[in-house]
Amino acid sequence: MPASEFSLIDRYFSAQRVRRADVALGIGDDGALLLPPGDQQLVVTLDALVADVHFFADADPEGIGHKALAVNLSDLAAMGATPAWATLALVLPRADEAWLARFRRGLFALAERHRMQLVGGDTTRGPTTVITLQAHGFVPPGLALRRDGAKPGDGIYVTGTPGDAGLALAVAYGKTTVAAAHRDYLQARLERPQPRIAQGLALRGIASAAIDISDGLAQDLGHILERSGVGARLEVDRLPLSPALLAGSDRRAALAVALSGGDDYELCFTAPPERVARLESTALGWDCRCTRIGAITAEPGLRLVGAESSAFHLERLGYDHFLS
Amino acid sequence: MPASEFSLIDRYFSAQRVRRADVALGIGDDGALLLPPGDQQLVVTLDALVADVHFFADADPEGIGHKALAVNLSDLAAMGATPAWATLALVLPRADEAWLARFRRGLFALAERHRMQLVGGDTTRGPTTVITLQAHGFVPPGLALRRDGAKPGDGIYVTGTPGDAGLALAVAYGKTTVAAAHRDYLQARLERPQPRIAQGLALRGIASAAIDISDGLAQDLGHILERSGVGARLEVDRLPLSPALLAGSDRRAALAVALSGGDDYELCFTAPPERVARLESTALGWDCRCTRIGAITAEPGLRLVGAESSAFHLERLGYDHFLS
Repeated sequence: MPASEFSLIDRYFSAQRVRRADVALGIGDDGALLLPPGDQQLVVTLDALVADVHFFADADPEGIGHKALAVNLSDLAAMGATPAWATLALVLPRADEAWLARFRRGLFALAERHRMQLVGGDTTRGPTTVITLQAHGFVPPGLALRRDGAKPGDGIYVTGTPGDAGLALAVAYGKTTVAAAHRDYLQARLERPQPRIAQGLALRGIASAAIDISDGLAQDLGHILERSGVGARLEVDRLPLSPALLAGSDRRAALAVALSGGDDYELCFTAPPERVARLESTALGWDCRCTRIGAITAEPGLRLVGAESSAFHLERLGYDHFLS
Repeated sequence: MPASEFSLIDRYFSAQRVRRADVALGIGDDGALLLPPGDQQLVVTLDALVADVHFFADADPEGIGHKALAVNLSDLAAMGATPAWATLALVLPRADEAWLARFRRGLFALAERHRMQLVGGDTTRGPTTVITLQAHGFVPPGLALRRDGAKPGDGIYVTGTPGDAGLALAVAYGKTTVAAAHRDYLQARLERPQPRIAQGLALRGIASAAIDISDGLAQDLGHILERSGVGARLEVDRLPLSPALLAGSDRRAALAVALSGGDDYELCFTAPPERVARLESTALGWDCRCTRIGAITAEPGLRLVGAESSAFHLERLGYDHFLS
């Protein structure tokens, strides 16, 4: 028996363990009533996930719930923000309670880890599943990690090992295969990305610019360059590749995926030379790698350098929903 | 030639006339940086509009842009909030620049009227058009119009003339016809709802509870009753019916549409007897009607009273996306 729109929202999304003191009124009215801290800026970010575009419609709903929040947390991380509130618009072909229960479990598990409360929602029927999640966070004035602060001479860094999600996607589409030993790791990298919230917070006052890698390292670094009015030398030989990525393809293909694969949700950021010591010190405590992969230049444009760079055509490295 | 995702957002949505001082960073980074006023609460509301569920896919894109914002402004109005910022997630089957230009025109015209700035967005491809808009506004602490404050003895009021949008929808589906003289009016009521922002602001300190009528007067009033733990007597004979609604159907059918038709975006609110004089005084300056249609009772449940009430079965008056 299909449940009504209202009982769906109430039953599946109202009972949360996280109860924030800055939520005066959550789900259940025309809007949520929230109390932003007076001394901080509010960071707002949203992402829409479409079935069979951003996730497989028949994928584990728990993973979809995780990912819908993770991609938004990743944007908060790239701004250096502390997570606070989320809202959720769900378009579903039918009211599938088993699906919703698992979706909620994945969403709330990640929300709880970051003390986020879901404060509002809209559930409606549509021909295909579309999940639009908006995340809200806080950052002290002047400390947000923007895209427009990179300066010539700054180092370029990346967290984790980009390309894993791209390889996992290629495996899912049957374009390549990997040894059984790497499959769980790669699937988790694609379906359960871990937003780099702690890293984003640690980079306040250190990074001069930051972005999260959702459309591929080369393309997303390109946005920093464009907004900052600078260029970059990217040292291809330095790209940190995971054992799974190296095992799953030859080195040249692995580098291509690391440069252009989407869905990684790692951070790419820049830092000026005088802050490198602080960066190295803080990065020692991280649960992921942090690798210097190049430098910002005054000359505009992105140049790939190093012995392995000649194999790549930059104009083919981007990913775009309307061009692919 | 299809435009890229990024140039779409930049080209169509960055150039706005409204430039608010409380927007430190708008479209173009991982998130927007906003400066909420320290002495007010933040109101957040969102609605997803799906093609051929909430609007006709081939409708005038300008009207769709208007409506996507209007339905959210209507929620802000129902909270008594001053509009401030919007974010927009657009899922589109293709990058149709002519459609986007007209959509933007409708959206921005209404945004400008309410000094709202679009501060963030996500554009992605999907099989069907889904527009998810989130609106942010402010309200002084303690003055928000919630659903849970109605008390026995309070009067029940409605703005405007409910049922017009429901009749317009019936006309659009070919279920009925109306005289040519009423067609433009009805179409505007369906496609260009005017959110009752001024009324919501005026009702701060007067209304004890409020909701906007998007799912039908009876059903939405029911939400106030449920949240407030009260009941109501609704005087069917007092329902304000527009000349177009009266001309388009017999009186009984007109009353049914006024009670159950969705998409009206009028306000239904309650006010205690001691504030009626203030209400009458402020409502004199409104650009829409304000009609007393009943009273809150201690006994739970919604009862229709009056000579014309016996014709209606309340359980059939609601509208639900998953039950219809």
